[in-house]
Amino acid sequence: MVTSTNSGTQFSGGQIEPTTRTKVRRAPQRGQYDHGTIHTILDEGLVCQVAFVVEGKPVVIPTAYGRVGDRLYIHGSPASRMLKSLQKGIDVCVTVTLLDGLVLARSAFHHSMNYRSVVVFGEAEWVSDPADKAAALKAFTEHVVPGRWDALRPMTEPEVKGTTVLALPLTEASAKIRTGPPVDDEADYELPIWAGVLPLGLQAGAAVVDPKLGDGVELPEAIAHWRRGVSQGS
Amino acid sequence: MVTSTNSGTQFSGGQIEPTTRTKVRRAPQRGQYDHGTIHTILDEGLVCQVAFVVEGKPVVIPTAYGRVGDRLYIHGSPASRMLKSLQKGIDVCVTVTLLDGLVLARSAFHHSMNYRSVVVFGEAEWVSDPADKAAALKAFTEHVVPGRWDALRPMTEPEVKGTTVLALPLTEASAKIRTGPPVDDEADYELPIWAGVLPLGLQAGAAVVDPKLGDGVELPEAIAHWRRGVSQGS
Repeated sequence: MVTSTNSGTQFSGGQIEPTTRTKVRRAPQRGQYDHGTIHTILDEGLVCQVAFVVEGKPVVIPTAYGRVGDRLYIHGSPASRMLKSLQKGIDVCVTVTLLDGLVLARSAFHHSMNYRSVVVFGEAEWVSDPADKAAALKAFTEHVVPGRWDALRPMTEPEVKGTTVLALPLTEASAKIRTGPPVDDEADYELPIWAGVLPLGLQAGAAVVDPKLGDGVELPEAIAHWRRGVSQGS
Repeated sequence: MVTSTNSGTQFSGGQIEPTTRTKVRRAPQRGQYDHGTIHTILDEGLVCQVAFVVEGKPVVIPTAYGRVGDRLYIHGSPASRMLKSLQKGIDVCVTVTLLDGLVLARSAFHHSMNYRSVVVFGEAEWVSDPADKAAALKAFTEHVVPGRWDALRPMTEPEVKGTTVLALPLTEASAKIRTGPPVDDEADYELPIWAGVLPLGLQAGAAVVDPKLGDGVELPEAIAHWRRGVSQGS
């Protein structure tokens, strides 16, 4: 038996119970609330958007992130001035959006996009515990290129201290997904207008070596063959 | 002679005078304030992130947009409930982020991303003027696939009425851009660790035809050869 309130979320197996904030209202059939779906989208994305309130007004800033279990870690610098004065949690809303395709219908009204997005609401807290912070910093790097952390010069104590990290629990979160072809008005299907989906995805080009790289350092396989989850687009 | 205040921005030729909100503080050398740069980034992006405040808490939602001159038009549905009750402007912060590459340094601390982003602050207003709204609706479609608007079944009056559109002036806006190789600590350059940039960009796959498309409708050139501004990544 699961109960939910407006202010929080409880778990039922792999599902997150939607709250008034996370329940998908527009096109509700696109809403998904299971951990697996939410984690997969977060793991594929590279940049998140962190929104917070400054003097009653909204601010949203793109930044890097990482995930460890049911916690999202974000680079705290955008909000660090606020945090330093607050010394406590800060209300945030974080989104990650993966664009999978352009949905080209027979009318402008039914044009759409195929996408997978996650929205997370909650109170982001400044991570001060050294072990927690170390895990977060590793997650930032591993999130971008798996295996990279161990290949690097280890972080120094001043570097760790100089990095602000925020943690956000993935308790009030939902995913929204659109897939498939356009949905046109019945009468429009007979019009001689091309319709379909143009799949889109993030692709890597050939790695560009740092001009200052010394001789004999090989390009790692993980970078040469880097790719993110393959978008189907349609 | 240009003066600026915290609450507004005045123009000096092609430049936007930064305000306390738009002035880039972290890595200030990455800040750019000219219309051309801001417009180019907005025109290349496909999804923007609209942040607003609901009952004192931040909300950010990905949505489609279009630009006409110095105005950004956004689909208003995310904020439409609020707008309908307010019947006036709503404070928003809008970002568009283009990810151009992973910057792989010799230390985790100096890992970064190459990107081009725009942030816009201001009061988004409900567009009710029919001519203004028509221009915005056309801009949404043309933004995604130039030339598409004229190929489509024209919008009906109920469709126009049923679409909420917000307009946001591009007066308090800035761009932030990072390009180039990693910047490592001097002592780290001699380490045998591969460093450089992995360029990233949005790429289109082969168009997927709507299974309901009738025979003999050709794929338009603009869709077959669709591409966005080419990211250099490095």
